[in-house]
Amino acid sequence: MTETETAIFQPGAAGRGQTLQTQIAARFAQQIHAQLLAQGSRLPSVRACARQQGVSPQTVVAAYDLLQAQGLVEARPKRGFFVRTPRHQPPVAAAQAGPPPLPTHATALMRGMFAQMHAVGSPGLRGMPGAGTLPAAWLQTPALTQAVRRLLRRDGVDAISLEYGHPQGDPQLRDALCQLLAALDVRAQPGQIMTCMGATQALDLITRAFARPGDAVLVEQPGWSAQFAQLAQSGLQLLPVPRGADGPDLERVAHWARVRKPRLMVVVSRLHNPTGHSMSMASAHRLLQLAREHGFLIVEDDVYGPLCEQPSPLLSAMDALEHTLFISGFSKLLAPGWRVGMVAASRERIELLTDQKLLANLTSPVLTERAVAFLLNQGALRRQGQHLRERLARARKQAVRLALESGCRFESPPQGLFGWLDTGVDADLLAQRLLDRGYLLAPGRLFDPQGMSTTRMRLNFPHALDAAFWKAYAAETAALRKSRG
Amino acid sequence: MTETETAIFQPGAAGRGQTLQTQIAARFAQQIHAQLLAQGSRLPSVRACARQQGVSPQTVVAAYDLLQAQGLVEARPKRGFFVRTPRHQPPVAAAQAGPPPLPTHATALMRGMFAQMHAVGSPGLRGMPGAGTLPAAWLQTPALTQAVRRLLRRDGVDAISLEYGHPQGDPQLRDALCQLLAALDVRAQPGQIMTCMGATQALDLITRAFARPGDAVLVEQPGWSAQFAQLAQSGLQLLPVPRGADGPDLERVAHWARVRKPRLMVVVSRLHNPTGHSMSMASAHRLLQLAREHGFLIVEDDVYGPLCEQPSPLLSAMDALEHTLFISGFSKLLAPGWRVGMVAASRERIELLTDQKLLANLTSPVLTERAVAFLLNQGALRRQGQHLRERLARARKQAVRLALESGCRFESPPQGLFGWLDTGVDADLLAQRLLDRGYLLAPGRLFDPQGMSTTRMRLNFPHALDAAFWKAYAAETAALRKSRG
Repeated sequence: MTETETAIFQPGAAGRGQTLQTQIAARFAQQIHAQLLAQGSRLPSVRACARQQGVSPQTVVAAYDLLQAQGLVEARPKRGFFVRTPRHQPPVAAAQAGPPPLPTHATALMRGMFAQMHAVGSPGLRGMPGAGTLPAAWLQTPALTQAVRRLLRRDGVDAISLEYGHPQGDPQLRDALCQLLAALDVRAQPGQIMTCMGATQALDLITRAFARPGDAVLVEQPGWSAQFAQLAQSGLQLLPVPRGADGPDLERVAHWARVRKPRLMVVVSRLHNPTGHSMSMASAHRLLQLAREHGFLIVEDDVYGPLCEQPSPLLSAMDALEHTLFISGFSKLLAPGWRVGMVAASRERIELLTDQKLLANLTSPVLTERAVAFLLNQGALRRQGQHLRERLARARKQAVRLALESGCRFESPPQGLFGWLDTGVDADLLAQRLLDRGYLLAPGRLFDPQGMSTTRMRLNFPHALDAAFWKAYAAETAALRKSRG
Repeated sequence: MTETETAIFQPGAAGRGQTLQTQIAARFAQQIHAQLLAQGSRLPSVRACARQQGVSPQTVVAAYDLLQAQGLVEARPKRGFFVRTPRHQPPVAAAQAGPPPLPTHATALMRGMFAQMHAVGSPGLRGMPGAGTLPAAWLQTPALTQAVRRLLRRDGVDAISLEYGHPQGDPQLRDALCQLLAALDVRAQPGQIMTCMGATQALDLITRAFARPGDAVLVEQPGWSAQFAQLAQSGLQLLPVPRGADGPDLERVAHWARVRKPRLMVVVSRLHNPTGHSMSMASAHRLLQLAREHGFLIVEDDVYGPLCEQPSPLLSAMDALEHTLFISGFSKLLAPGWRVGMVAASRERIELLTDQKLLANLTSPVLTERAVAFLLNQGALRRQGQHLRERLARARKQAVRLALESGCRFESPPQGLFGWLDTGVDADLLAQRLLDRGYLLAPGRLFDPQGMSTTRMRLNFPHALDAAFWKAYAAETAALRKSRG
């Protein structure tokens, strides 16, 4: 094996006692099963693959033939090999009208990230500059262990196990969340808070409670495709609104509001994903006026908020939760594995959301919710935020330098966890090539409500500190520029 | 205060320093907020309420006036006082065609149960003969604490906290589930299993993955209304199939299959809720033939299965998961507060379900899933099942005796956790009267896909051992018979 191969083919079941062609086929098969290679996407050309893997073109042809025999890819004359569309499509997805729901692509990035963590279906992923989270090692704090141990000592396992939790969420956690929200100037009583499985479920339940299939929903462009997929899957029509430095394009909001009467708008006020922008006071005020005037609800997603260094206005604070629902979670800064998230809204809306939650999954687990309450009461989130912001600032500085040296151009001033940058080449092709080298990128298409290809990509600063990645990045962008010109 | 009042008005904030009329109004207000009194339902007549509470009719009139002033009830001339329908209806529910979705009623029972556990919005609930679960005290076993402590000692808090779980569910749990299923003769690989938030979420995700709004779904009549509400909320049309001792009425299944082309059928093969029936071999075989012939999927719900004393055929075992999806959970026998459930199905269907799960809430918490794996590997579920079946048999014998002495007639031979019985009076009215006395019943309407009133009710044996309840039951059925005749 060449050095490249050894690097990419990490030791594992697939690498032992198999021919080269079987190994290559197995590797692609795993990527297809893990949906790291989307349906309909093209495999690398035989020549490119042979070069990348340091094998002969004949070996690659044999590997592709194997994949074809397995029904995983199909050959299209003069065009190459493509990942096959499976026969059984989920009927829900097939039935959707409007813009394509992209679930394959949205879930592809998520599956890619999860795959690396669990070393399943992920042959030799070396880095995730496209990740949406901080590195797990950054989250380490003795506070987690302390909170769980103290909680178990205080309440015992039975008390948090033998009965269903409160449908609205653990009362101790909701009390702590009131304090947390008050510090953000969002005033809410415990009856105005519902807990759920991360901010992801918050948006899902909100969609179910306050919109129906065929309704329109305003989304920011760029924005996060997992949310687009969630909304599209609920049968909603996405109305894209360009996101600028001050916030969403208000002219466009007003236009859509007049002609399409949307029910909801999903907005990230501070540290917008992927641009890093935070909304201005004036935009926030005006957006709330539009919501009031046209009768749509604003879902304010603040999952990355605690990483924000400057004070930034929150719509939910300004609006006192009248036309807003505030959603956030504790997966980004504290414990992704606990899956604790929340919604704050008017009491009446929380009642409706609680019915939705009961129908979706009854209640959420008590142990993890109460452990978060412990952490909040002990100031652990505040300390963790402080620590992570400082560490992130250093990583950001370094990653920005590396990115600029590799020819990236930032579309907006680097802030928070993500950079939004222009690669100068087709970011989809780039992502595919870098995935072949073991790096998972987040190309701009994942942030476009219409799923259009673009030259942009989102960069996760702490996951982009590896010189080897930037070397690969420079080589592949150069190759793409060359093949284009 | 009379003795009756003292008993019903348990000590609490509402009971101190208030006039009688304010107390009565506050109590009804709490029941309305907790949705223990459904929208549109009638308050007791002034005279009945005065008699029940041992106060003057004037006091009751004053209390009802207070409620009317608060906008919670409305007076309808010559008919009485009714719980008001709130102005803001969730648009999804409003848009549904077909049979009424009943979410209020389905969630009312659930909220009632949760309310008692959490002593919120539940003024003086004294018993829950309508409950769907075993008493929490019955579930106590040192095994839970041992499993959690050992798991934390072995893996540490960080390992189960700092990363998202595997989207399909904790691999250790899925391995353990394969063993569990094998013992039921259901053969599944770990790739054929997905974990989720209880069997409740399993059905929700299945509906999303394999049906679309407007599709028809076969349900058993009687059956469990929370499932009817789930299905209706997803926009599905419920096709009721009478459930007999051998299983669902196969003629009706064939008829619906021909004329309505359902996508799904939800079936409880053993210890059917509420009748306690288990399906015969011949019915199971024939039902699977119909599913194959007409191309619908069978969702086999086995949450109460481990309480079954006789061996009973499972559709999923017979069918080898070809047209079946097997769903179950660990809330009934082990730890309701952990919210661990599962689906077993073909690998391809599990892939589709996993995408749905990612969009709904990403992943499920690792700690509780791995703790269940521990319990399964140590044989704790088997031991717990044995213990609970024995204890349940004793409680059932006693409750059946009390029920028969109180004039109940069982519709089917008492089995498992529930009795399905005929009260001889309108079970809705009976439920309302007994709720006034502090007992939460499960009237037959909650088990009817069309939400029709009936004289039947479901009885939870371990929750029906209290002689005071049966005294109240006998008094109220007698009063209802008298007022009718």
